[in-house]
Amino acid sequence: MNNFEYFNPTRIVFGKGQISRLRDLVPQSASVLMCYGGGSIKHNGVYEQVLTALAGWELIEFSGIEPNPDFDTLMHAIRLGREKGINFVLAVGGGSVIDGAKLIAAGIPYQQGDVWDIVTMDAKLKRGDALPLGTVLTLPATASEMNGTSVISRRSTQEKLGWFSEAVFPVFSILDPTTTFTLPIKQVRNGVVDAYIHVIEQYATYPVNALLQDRQAEGILITLQTVGEDALKQPPDYDTRANFMWAATSALNKLINKGVPEDWATHRIGHELTAFYGLDHAESLAVVLPYLLWHQRQQKADKLVQYAQRVWGLHGDGEAVIRAAIDKMTLFFNRLGMPTKLTDFNINPDEAAERVRARFESRQVLLGELNQIDPDIVAEILRMSQ
Amino acid sequence: MNNFEYFNPTRIVFGKGQISRLRDLVPQSASVLMCYGGGSIKHNGVYEQVLTALAGWELIEFSGIEPNPDFDTLMHAIRLGREKGINFVLAVGGGSVIDGAKLIAAGIPYQQGDVWDIVTMDAKLKRGDALPLGTVLTLPATASEMNGTSVISRRSTQEKLGWFSEAVFPVFSILDPTTTFTLPIKQVRNGVVDAYIHVIEQYATYPVNALLQDRQAEGILITLQTVGEDALKQPPDYDTRANFMWAATSALNKLINKGVPEDWATHRIGHELTAFYGLDHAESLAVVLPYLLWHQRQQKADKLVQYAQRVWGLHGDGEAVIRAAIDKMTLFFNRLGMPTKLTDFNINPDEAAERVRARFESRQVLLGELNQIDPDIVAEILRMSQ
Repeated sequence: MNNFEYFNPTRIVFGKGQISRLRDLVPQSASVLMCYGGGSIKHNGVYEQVLTALAGWELIEFSGIEPNPDFDTLMHAIRLGREKGINFVLAVGGGSVIDGAKLIAAGIPYQQGDVWDIVTMDAKLKRGDALPLGTVLTLPATASEMNGTSVISRRSTQEKLGWFSEAVFPVFSILDPTTTFTLPIKQVRNGVVDAYIHVIEQYATYPVNALLQDRQAEGILITLQTVGEDALKQPPDYDTRANFMWAATSALNKLINKGVPEDWATHRIGHELTAFYGLDHAESLAVVLPYLLWHQRQQKADKLVQYAQRVWGLHGDGEAVIRAAIDKMTLFFNRLGMPTKLTDFNINPDEAAERVRARFESRQVLLGELNQIDPDIVAEILRMSQ
Repeated sequence: MNNFEYFNPTRIVFGKGQISRLRDLVPQSASVLMCYGGGSIKHNGVYEQVLTALAGWELIEFSGIEPNPDFDTLMHAIRLGREKGINFVLAVGGGSVIDGAKLIAAGIPYQQGDVWDIVTMDAKLKRGDALPLGTVLTLPATASEMNGTSVISRRSTQEKLGWFSEAVFPVFSILDPTTTFTLPIKQVRNGVVDAYIHVIEQYATYPVNALLQDRQAEGILITLQTVGEDALKQPPDYDTRANFMWAATSALNKLINKGVPEDWATHRIGHELTAFYGLDHAESLAVVLPYLLWHQRQQKADKLVQYAQRVWGLHGDGEAVIRAAIDKMTLFFNRLGMPTKLTDFNINPDEAAERVRARFESRQVLLGELNQIDPDIVAEILRMSQ
């Protein structure tokens, strides 16, 4: 087991009816900037629940945080927050809203330089350097509600960067599974697959004798497999959605990656596919992962056999059981309605392979837990996605 | 799944060589009260590592915190801390030292009343009401290094109480598995069994469809089973001790009990056996749990069958598989050198049953996740321990 550090101070308030807890969780002296996205919270009752809970609080709304939150949008919120003397940020939404709200919370008090420096991490934020941030999660997927990471896009310069600071761990996050009941099925599907692949990225590497971390990761995978299909059904079942929601948070709250190597090559490749072809994040991962795992099966053999045996209950070892496990995973995604080939999106694998290869080559990027996936290997992997 | 709240702000710094990190973790302005126990840290190098890391810090030592830390001992430390203007408490040791240090950290600034009020929880502490506490763990077992609970004894009045406050979560805990290398084998054995039974108390109740929590609990049990016997071997193996250490912390850092019912009857009964007969805490649990689980097998049937299947890989259901699983667990404890019958300690089960029954009857105590274990049932369970 490798040395590690674990720190996660976010208070999780989980369950039905818990949005009313905002009254206890947001200081009465707070001037709140309530951030949300396109307004779906106005159609599912969440908006009213928040306003009811915070009746009497000084509250300014900022709506319109888009998927892949844009720096320029967030700068509007930051200027508004400074102008209004905001001292508490409340994000109501999914990963994009929460990621955006993290930059807003850090950016409002950051007057010593350009807010973009926070995203590039040239600004060295310490705990306490951001305004306190609370969240009401409505879309389980990214676990941004329980970590200190954020991904910000800057469309004006075609940049998209992930950053991390302990300053922007939410002080609390309310997870009410009933808020997911009105989600479009496609978003639920995306959330299940996204969370699943988050776990695989932290698990399917090479063994370092971290026994509990492996079990924790496998537990999340099995949970997602158990509830995945049922989570798509109507009417929604509370416990199914609750298990999905807690599994998605647990997939990336940085517990299961303690002391173990991580991969993230699928994410890096998927980001480029989203950039070139506009695939949803989860879609971009699902057309890469099955082929990456198979291509890297020698390097990842021990963990893939363990995955086959423990997560899918398969017997045996060697390439046959690895092939069977990857097929099981792929079929699981397909049963959720998630395509797993570039050709399913009418994308030419050879073209995609060349475009992504060229981009990684120009950046001299090496991927994977051992930095052994070079741009040519990326291209090989993408050509398999058909 | 039941509604729940999760909050755990302790920073875990895990791995070999990490005691040197004290230099970054303890503020340079701190006046440190370094608390420890009987001095074993002076024989295993931990004491020197701490002093080396904190060379240059203002540091006062307080030694002599005994197993089952005594209120009067801790009051000496509190008075010393007040006198010396201490503003940071560092616990170096196992659960007793850390539990005691929690009261010291809360007691030094608590001047508005009797410090005992903290233990009775009549003093309503809030976060920030205690001095910051850091720990260097040397004995994996209680998880006090990553929770806000503490058990304090007051021998002068024959009281022993557990208390909880968010104010006394350690701000950091350093877990270096090599600090366990010099532990007496009996303490390692106790730690494995203690951690294992912590998990069972939060798991073997009745199902509430909390899928991930079940998997997380089962993962800890399997991990402890995997490393338990090897953890007793000499010379110690680093990864084995590391897995044991992280599993023990994870067993009671209040993650696996989120949204599920808890039992704790074995602990309540065991405490009385320790009081009457002086059994080690883990010993007192191991002579109760197998009989309690069998006695309560109807109430706990679903979870016990799940335990049998998932943790021990047994097939089938019904009483036969429950019996087989309890036998497996008992044999596991025995293989660690842990007795599992009152008679192994030359204690008369009938006598113990009557003494504990009378005590719970006088207190009108009902135990178990459904409060259905009355004093007569406690006696029945203890009479089985032979």
